[in-house]
Amino acid sequence: MSTIRARAIVYSKYGEPIDVIKTHSYDLPAPESLKDDQVLLQTLAAPLNPSDINQIQGVYPSRPPISINSLPGLKEASAVSGNEGVFKVLGAGSAVANLKPGDWVIPHNVNYGTWTSHSLSAEKDLLKIPNTIPLKQAATMAVNTSSAYLMLTHFVDLKKGDWFIQNGGNSQVGRCAIQIAKQKGINSISIVRNRPNLKELVDELTALGATHVITEDDNGSRDFGKTIKEWTDGKSISLGMNCVGGSSVSGLSRKLGKNATLVTYGGMSMKPVTLPTSLFIFKNLKAVGFWITEMTKEDPSLRSEVIEEVLKLIESGSLADIHCTLNKIVNDKVSDEQFTESFKQGLIDSKTKGKQIMIFE
Amino acid sequence: MSTIRARAIVYSKYGEPIDVIKTHSYDLPAPESLKDDQVLLQTLAAPLNPSDINQIQGVYPSRPPISINSLPGLKEASAVSGNEGVFKVLGAGSAVANLKPGDWVIPHNVNYGTWTSHSLSAEKDLLKIPNTIPLKQAATMAVNTSSAYLMLTHFVDLKKGDWFIQNGGNSQVGRCAIQIAKQKGINSISIVRNRPNLKELVDELTALGATHVITEDDNGSRDFGKTIKEWTDGKSISLGMNCVGGSSVSGLSRKLGKNATLVTYGGMSMKPVTLPTSLFIFKNLKAVGFWITEMTKEDPSLRSEVIEEVLKLIESGSLADIHCTLNKIVNDKVSDEQFTESFKQGLIDSKTKGKQIMIFE
Repeated sequence: MSTIRARAIVYSKYGEPIDVIKTHSYDLPAPESLKDDQVLLQTLAAPLNPSDINQIQGVYPSRPPISINSLPGLKEASAVSGNEGVFKVLGAGSAVANLKPGDWVIPHNVNYGTWTSHSLSAEKDLLKIPNTIPLKQAATMAVNTSSAYLMLTHFVDLKKGDWFIQNGGNSQVGRCAIQIAKQKGINSISIVRNRPNLKELVDELTALGATHVITEDDNGSRDFGKTIKEWTDGKSISLGMNCVGGSSVSGLSRKLGKNATLVTYGGMSMKPVTLPTSLFIFKNLKAVGFWITEMTKEDPSLRSEVIEEVLKLIESGSLADIHCTLNKIVNDKVSDEQFTESFKQGLIDSKTKGKQIMIFE
Repeated sequence: MSTIRARAIVYSKYGEPIDVIKTHSYDLPAPESLKDDQVLLQTLAAPLNPSDINQIQGVYPSRPPISINSLPGLKEASAVSGNEGVFKVLGAGSAVANLKPGDWVIPHNVNYGTWTSHSLSAEKDLLKIPNTIPLKQAATMAVNTSSAYLMLTHFVDLKKGDWFIQNGGNSQVGRCAIQIAKQKGINSISIVRNRPNLKELVDELTALGATHVITEDDNGSRDFGKTIKEWTDGKSISLGMNCVGGSSVSGLSRKLGKNATLVTYGGMSMKPVTLPTSLFIFKNLKAVGFWITEMTKEDPSLRSEVIEEVLKLIESGSLADIHCTLNKIVNDKVSDEQFTESFKQGLIDSKTKGKQIMIFE
């Protein structure tokens, strides 16, 4: 076989993903026909992240270019979807120093275009990771796990025995934060929404290493502050992580101690970040934002460092299996239309059924 | 005359100031009878600040002790009201190095108790200032003018030609900020509430040195952002100052550039600080608080430094006369009851008639 049939999810204009995405298929050289500096990749897994969707909608500040040069054989200017994923090296040109067939890699930067069956890349754009770690961990380590790690380590110098508080405790990032904190001896208070099967969720997060799990009702109650003070034995909570906004972040912020930092990385309630004035003036609250794309763009060495630390956590077994659904595509057995449909179904499911990851054979 | 009859506004329990304040009168030694380290002061002027009122209400985090030792001759534990003021030295003991009769001083720290006719102090607790500057400037430089100066200089390194934006542009601090910025070549956008005599106010603030004055209606309009971009010629606004909260600070924050700092020092609307999530994540907004009491307590040298800088501004004539009402008390001619009544009337007027300053003869 002298070529490989590659497929990629592309879009030529911004809009709702299920309206605008389509498959572009094109030929890539076989492993034995690569140029000196080329690396041929097969995609193993690529998650469907909210930020991928926002890119396609055109509402995300960082976006790949819509260009005729995005892929070979394009008939109109297009952008390739997807920012996160894990690939297997199928072949490497003679000038490629540190990658060989069978190695696993992840993109060094965002806007790579990971919703693909195969791709052609350059060694400098790839980060090698061990091909022995769980696939789901590999596929999601660059965004969710790295975000949790950076937020816990970059803003406040948390020591063993210190406390942080977060809302969205049941989110992917929230679960990662619980586990990373546990591994570092840092105590966590995680806020989750009330639900019929609350005890089940609390037990699950506690099993992951959560110190305490409270509901948004607890979070909204002024009296509950006393319970938290008993838990922390009067020690002040110096870091808050917010991905919800609205009244959730108001309640969370009231539990922070003097000189604390509140890091906002999402706004799932679609409501603004609402904080009592007195916390700013009398408790010296500092409220900042976190965007892994920008932080690692401004400091690329940070990306390699955090990946290294996250790999240590994964390899030591400190991170439990990821909650997600795997959607398998057998590239050789589907049409372009079926390739597109698989992604569309994944996008629909991601709205109601939790994290969706596409995997390829 | 061997003693001086001193009067002080005190309170023995927290509550609404007009309900709980009373006058304590007591004898102080005459200037010629002072101990070596004593400084005898006559109060020249003391403003009635919102934070003074909040202290008496018991809702301000920094408060003077309610103690039987606060003043000589107290019959019950009391605290002395007032944090800001300017005094004339009537006499100084033989060990006092740098103060002599006729000098002007201000308290080195908060919680001094300035709502008094006279007081006895120690040299280390006083900062000498020139006795040639305008009395109103002297009486208000420690809080309002110093706050404006610190907020403009401490958080963002504003250079000539840079921009900042503030709400409460017509407040005492807002007016000071306009003038200090003008003197430093920094451009200002000041937000004020709409009112019948708007043009008058805009003209007045412009005369003080305001680059632009806009209304809260302008601030709330998304379209108005374009006008501001034209004014700044695309230069980003790197500092915001907020003393209002609610929708005012939401609008203000949208006008800030990437990596800007928003400083909250008040909440006149009684509504929380409400900020769009996207500004934190995608524009790296940093929101912090400012409380001059805490900042200068943690770094006492900062207080002397800022007073020095503010004095330079006052002496060079860079700060216009302060908008306020002076309420004169002739100490020798009033009863204790009349002394109390003067303060109560000043407190009532301060709710509707702007800043009130008590002056003494």
